[in-house]
Amino acid sequence: MVCKTFDDLLQKASSCSVKKVAVACAQDDAVLEAVKAAKDRNIADAILVGDKAKITTIANVLKMNLSDYEIIDVVDPVEAAHTAVKLVHDGKADMYMKGLIDTKSFLKSVLDKEVGLRTDKTLSHVCVFDIEGYDRLLFLSDVAFIPYPDLETKANIIRNTVEIAHACGLENPKVAPVAAVEVVNPKMPATVDADELTKMNEAGDITGCIVDGPLALDLALEPEAAYHKGTTDRKIVGDADVILFPDIQAGNITYKCLVHTANCQNGNILTGTKAPVILTSRSDDFETKVNSIALAAVVAEEM
Amino acid sequence: MVCKTFDDLLQKASSCSVKKVAVACAQDDAVLEAVKAAKDRNIADAILVGDKAKITTIANVLKMNLSDYEIIDVVDPVEAAHTAVKLVHDGKADMYMKGLIDTKSFLKSVLDKEVGLRTDKTLSHVCVFDIEGYDRLLFLSDVAFIPYPDLETKANIIRNTVEIAHACGLENPKVAPVAAVEVVNPKMPATVDADELTKMNEAGDITGCIVDGPLALDLALEPEAAYHKGTTDRKIVGDADVILFPDIQAGNITYKCLVHTANCQNGNILTGTKAPVILTSRSDDFETKVNSIALAAVVAEEM
Repeated sequence: MVCKTFDDLLQKASSCSVKKVAVACAQDDAVLEAVKAAKDRNIADAILVGDKAKITTIANVLKMNLSDYEIIDVVDPVEAAHTAVKLVHDGKADMYMKGLIDTKSFLKSVLDKEVGLRTDKTLSHVCVFDIEGYDRLLFLSDVAFIPYPDLETKANIIRNTVEIAHACGLENPKVAPVAAVEVVNPKMPATVDADELTKMNEAGDITGCIVDGPLALDLALEPEAAYHKGTTDRKIVGDADVILFPDIQAGNITYKCLVHTANCQNGNILTGTKAPVILTSRSDDFETKVNSIALAAVVAEEM
Repeated sequence: MVCKTFDDLLQKASSCSVKKVAVACAQDDAVLEAVKAAKDRNIADAILVGDKAKITTIANVLKMNLSDYEIIDVVDPVEAAHTAVKLVHDGKADMYMKGLIDTKSFLKSVLDKEVGLRTDKTLSHVCVFDIEGYDRLLFLSDVAFIPYPDLETKANIIRNTVEIAHACGLENPKVAPVAAVEVVNPKMPATVDADELTKMNEAGDITGCIVDGPLALDLALEPEAAYHKGTTDRKIVGDADVILFPDIQAGNITYKCLVHTANCQNGNILTGTKAPVILTSRSDDFETKVNSIALAAVVAEEM
């Protein structure tokens, strides 16, 4: 099943075998609310690691029946993260989620050499959007994690993101390394890299997808714009599935522009890890957190 | 009058003394249609420089009464641009607009030492957006013209953009130099520059505005996000008027993201010149072209 919307993705997640998310420091109302919704919608079960007293208080407010969940009482945040990530490392849970713990400590647990989820792959962040007016899901990377990727890192970001797109049912996603312009300009390194990535795809160094860059964003998203500019010889003509950003400034600003100005939903995970990692931020809304759990579940199904 | 929408801006333009736009190579249907609309709405008169035979043919299709316009018959595009820009240079027109001529030749006429519009200011591009759900106009720069501005160029881009905002009635616009994060990180030059620009504003080197950076885009546009992140000590809390981009990749991708995913209108001009320059692209829609003429007229009123 090709997921074209988050409704599709949620449906796909609920039709997989039920996955289990280990939550580090689960005493967070927004996180618990999302975990509860994920369970109610048959998307995922959870193991709640953290301050049991606080978890219980929040659960009461949310009318959440804690007998449905395994709870491991660990008050210290770093220790709780260690315990939670080990559950995933040991195969007792399928995905790992951040609760009320600072990002730095959480990532430290992800990268822990003994109990963490590090592989030899590049760790990267994938943000998936369902945008009103666009006829498919749009996968953005990297908007949050890798500041200034070099060419090889960009290739790895594409490889990671394409795996996520495959898990969402896209067989051969179209990947647009975007820049300000659609022609190679040696004065704009982003265009040179985009051209190299396209060649690496043609040479079989990047597989499972069609890479076509550099592209300006209008040509990646809007067939009409491609028509106006007369670029009919491209492999992507307003039908991109994946947008690769030149750096985190472009990626993060565009991501936040979408969230705050477009009619859209999103979900995001960290990947390149042994299991999907859910790292939503406090400012993410409820739906984003549930979408992220669903995305992680669909990806875990393929791992 | 503070313009908060393009309706306000069009009203302001039509209540100014009527401005005159000199069009280089006016034999372009989309440009003539916008010029006609600008006249019909009392925003601007035009002097049409270009291939008179072709202009007449298009005008007939558009049911445009050419007796309302001064026409100067010059068939050669470079010569036509030279003639048109000279009209502005000599004060016979108030603004300069690109018709059916390639951008390079058009810009060459803008920069012409004898008859062009160059000043000692930095030339920069300003794109103004009216976005559904945002309570004010948003001025973006630079999304089209300056690839990698250094600190001093960024300061000049702010100065240019603030002048445009003033012309639109904003007395003391809030300028957000945006980046991926809202804290200074020496590994992210965009954040260091943003901090420097803020200090230059505090020191009186950049005036007529309030600069507060670095800011992530959500904090610039969304009071709610500022609240979630607990940043209450900022001068900008989701109420930015101007967004300064770290480079053209971030700027152009965000600009195109807005155009193709948000419910919005825009208009844009080139500034830092003796008179406003209208340089819309073929892929811009009709409304954008009319908005750009109105923006130029409002700016010309203050020059």
